[in-house]
Amino acid sequence: MSSNQQREFQPIQSIGRQGLLDRIEAIPGVQHPDVIQGIGDDAAVIGQDEDNVTLLTSETFMEGVDFDLVYHPLKHLGYKCMSAAVSDIYAMNGKPTAATVDLALPTKISVQMVEELYRGLQSAAGENEVQIVGGDVSAAHQALAISISVYGEAKEDRVTYRSGAHKDDALCVTGDLGGAMAGLRILMREKKFWQEQEGEDVAFQPDLEGYEYAVGRQLVPKARRDLIEKFEELDFRPSSMIDITQGLVNELYQLVRAADIGAYIYQAAIPIALETRSVADEMKEDVDRYALYGGEDLELLFTLPEKQVDRFAKEFTDFAVIGRITDASEGLKMQTSEGDVVLFNEDDQQSPNP
Amino acid sequence: MSSNQQREFQPIQSIGRQGLLDRIEAIPGVQHPDVIQGIGDDAAVIGQDEDNVTLLTSETFMEGVDFDLVYHPLKHLGYKCMSAAVSDIYAMNGKPTAATVDLALPTKISVQMVEELYRGLQSAAGENEVQIVGGDVSAAHQALAISISVYGEAKEDRVTYRSGAHKDDALCVTGDLGGAMAGLRILMREKKFWQEQEGEDVAFQPDLEGYEYAVGRQLVPKARRDLIEKFEELDFRPSSMIDITQGLVNELYQLVRAADIGAYIYQAAIPIALETRSVADEMKEDVDRYALYGGEDLELLFTLPEKQVDRFAKEFTDFAVIGRITDASEGLKMQTSEGDVVLFNEDDQQSPNP
Repeated sequence: MSSNQQREFQPIQSIGRQGLLDRIEAIPGVQHPDVIQGIGDDAAVIGQDEDNVTLLTSETFMEGVDFDLVYHPLKHLGYKCMSAAVSDIYAMNGKPTAATVDLALPTKISVQMVEELYRGLQSAAGENEVQIVGGDVSAAHQALAISISVYGEAKEDRVTYRSGAHKDDALCVTGDLGGAMAGLRILMREKKFWQEQEGEDVAFQPDLEGYEYAVGRQLVPKARRDLIEKFEELDFRPSSMIDITQGLVNELYQLVRAADIGAYIYQAAIPIALETRSVADEMKEDVDRYALYGGEDLELLFTLPEKQVDRFAKEFTDFAVIGRITDASEGLKMQTSEGDVVLFNEDDQQSPNP
Repeated sequence: MSSNQQREFQPIQSIGRQGLLDRIEAIPGVQHPDVIQGIGDDAAVIGQDEDNVTLLTSETFMEGVDFDLVYHPLKHLGYKCMSAAVSDIYAMNGKPTAATVDLALPTKISVQMVEELYRGLQSAAGENEVQIVGGDVSAAHQALAISISVYGEAKEDRVTYRSGAHKDDALCVTGDLGGAMAGLRILMREKKFWQEQEGEDVAFQPDLEGYEYAVGRQLVPKARRDLIEKFEELDFRPSSMIDITQGLVNELYQLVRAADIGAYIYQAAIPIALETRSVADEMKEDVDRYALYGGEDLELLFTLPEKQVDRFAKEFTDFAVIGRITDASEGLKMQTSEGDVVLFNEDDQQSPNP
């Protein structure tokens, strides 16, 4: 350790994830002439030839931080991690081709458990037409770590960046939001209940009746390949796109920052499943917080020129218009269901996650 | 967990790393038509167009398993991890273009420490003309984890696989072997000494005088881009190639298995640096074990048709011929410095690593 490190210990928490990413980005490095887009979008974009680009993304999932093996069956876990990884390729309007998977395995993980995990990885890989082409297995001391990198392709003129939104574009979101958070709430409650059954040597068997939808959203989320295929089929290109992994408000900030725009959303327009509402009610929590800040839904947030919306809606129904793009000076605003207008403050991005 | 997992707990140790990889490979998955080589080589090979291919590899480095922060300064650690990751692209006779880096960061890691690590990553990336194009930062409970995936390119007709060696080809290795292991030995001794100074609140300041070469091999190994550039310049293509990260004997097994061949090596021909010998003497250990089983040297092991060796040696001097390729029925044999011939047994691949 250099003396500099000994003098100064600034916890990462004090500047946050984005602050750390900004600090890392400031460190100079090589610019390769083939790279079209480096750090700063869902995936990097690298030129292949005149027409085609490579898309590259990677993600690491850590036990105890990103998942809990008590309520995450390994097969589902593999499925979820692969879905989340390929979702970043879809968010660029591309299609994934291949993935590598690195596993760091503590001794509590058996051969059979690795096989279960892999079956889940292959299940999601299959649905997304991705071949697992490599990867490493290594030991870990305590926590299971799963790193996935995905390679995808797109026509260069179809790649969609975070930064492409224009004023008055419609803000659209696929599916519904907050379901993964609702599912997490249920699973955490069941885990707590199970832990209270002290001394009883039984495996965790949560009672999930009536919560299948929400729990499924948490455990086995699907990446939205269907949207990308529809865009391709109809030759539509959204002006910007991002996948929702860190919660709607956070992703909106990413779009707003990247394109130097503002956004205005309608709380009443945010799609929320009935079961998600029931869970929030049962937990005595605000379902809008699930929808605004809950992550992991793997839905796609995209912008379309206003005049294209109706045409697209005739061909693809599983999306909702939740607002529109405004000037940067407007910031990020929401008209609440009661009719008030609130301005989001970037420092106030707490998720309802405990 | 399924009832199957509860019945059966087979520790990974019981089948080993290769056994686990074989089990994983047996799980069915999608075959993508663009993939030319999936699991089973240093990097995956994916077709781009008629002439060019993409190379893809990833590796995860775990604290406590792959490195020890007590003696691994973070800047060096970043350098080493990036070198090791790009080395897999060189082992395919390609060149790296871009990399993604995922960091899982425990709270003991400060912002400044991440910056140091990144400076090292960028330093090796710069030497290898690689742009870091993305990556993720996330929390970890205890151990620092670094996952790097590298994207590279090659002309399809220049890609070199593990499986290409033919009978009578010369077995060649760049640089010298066992140095990284010797360096590790020195660092471990210094760590032990330091830990014995109990109660003294001083930073670890190892006395490395006289061991600069070996310690450098352990802490800041260079990937052998120079060999790949020379091959390109002279339009040579080795018949097979692999990088030495798990030790010479292990890599020889990979070549032998992939090409269904045998190999015969001469112990006296294995290049070992003087300082590596001194360290082994000092430790009262067998330097040949360092050279045969010590990993992390990041040298390249390759085969060349016998008649090309002299011509290549006129243009590139930093390699040695250590043996030749034989029939599969011959297995993997070594003529010792004393003139005996030993047959390696794949189950007996202990490294001198404690």
